[in-house]
Amino acid sequence: MFNLVLVNPQIPNNTGAIGRLCVNAGASLHIIKPIAFDIDEKAVRRAGLDYWHKLDLHVWESIDDFFQNNKITDNAYFATTKTDKPYFEAAFKEGDYIFFGSETAGIPEAILDAYKEQNITIPMTKDGRSLNLAISTGIVLYDAIRQNYTAFKGLL
Amino acid sequence: MFNLVLVNPQIPNNTGAIGRLCVNAGASLHIIKPIAFDIDEKAVRRAGLDYWHKLDLHVWESIDDFFQNNKITDNAYFATTKTDKPYFEAAFKEGDYIFFGSETAGIPEAILDAYKEQNITIPMTKDGRSLNLAISTGIVLYDAIRQNYTAFKGLL
Repeated sequence: MFNLVLVNPQIPNNTGAIGRLCVNAGASLHIIKPIAFDIDEKAVRRAGLDYWHKLDLHVWESIDDFFQNNKITDNAYFATTKTDKPYFEAAFKEGDYIFFGSETAGIPEAILDAYKEQNITIPMTKDGRSLNLAISTGIVLYDAIRQNYTAFKGLL
Repeated sequence: MFNLVLVNPQIPNNTGAIGRLCVNAGASLHIIKPIAFDIDEKAVRRAGLDYWHKLDLHVWESIDDFFQNNKITDNAYFATTKTDKPYFEAAFKEGDYIFFGSETAGIPEAILDAYKEQNITIPMTKDGRSLNLAISTGIVLYDAIRQNYTAFKGLL
């Protein structure tokens, strides 16, 4: 229903939990290399429980490889702490791509700049500064589902 | 702003990530014992990063201890896979308590039954069956924030 895109993820536990999330959310998962672990390693599958083999997974060799093979226009949103626009003010549509950067570096600046109007953020208190990547993907993906719940009901 | 209540959590990584979530979301965290780990252990603090010491944390010795010291009426919601009511159809108000059960057992039946009208769920595809606990708390807590965003802005 939606496409979740992880740019260069670093922590196998997060990627595993996100794979499990995607199966439960009816989303496809795109992983853009380089990544800091072996995608088949035990920690990924353990965090993904028995969902990993049900996952619609696409692995891309590089950012260029991804953009050459996926048409990204106004059908995408880019999560970053560098904008003030809350994710729930985006109007998600079926098939949209939702991008998250790595746990350490976020989405590369050049991509954020190229799609400035489509940058979104999860509002956080001034005591906070960042959320766990897997939790962040769940928050945004499920708001997209909430906004398109009539269509999502067909997957229940 | 909200109260997140974990009944008998089992996995220190999840509790740590949820503590970090609560600091970012301006929420208080209630942990009801027994729990399957030492609340001060390294794994909790590692997953909580440097947020753990900023957390408004309340630890309760038992379910009875919690209910004797917190007035729970219509100001609470209980997450479970045993209802069809989506969490986003709940009308969250400031100060509400949002309950989640353990990773293995969920919220005890007796509590779910006592507050049947306030049971909520995260809709999942038929290929799925359950989400990671930390991701689930983020999804529901941030929908409560979305619904009360004018008030939340005061914490930004």
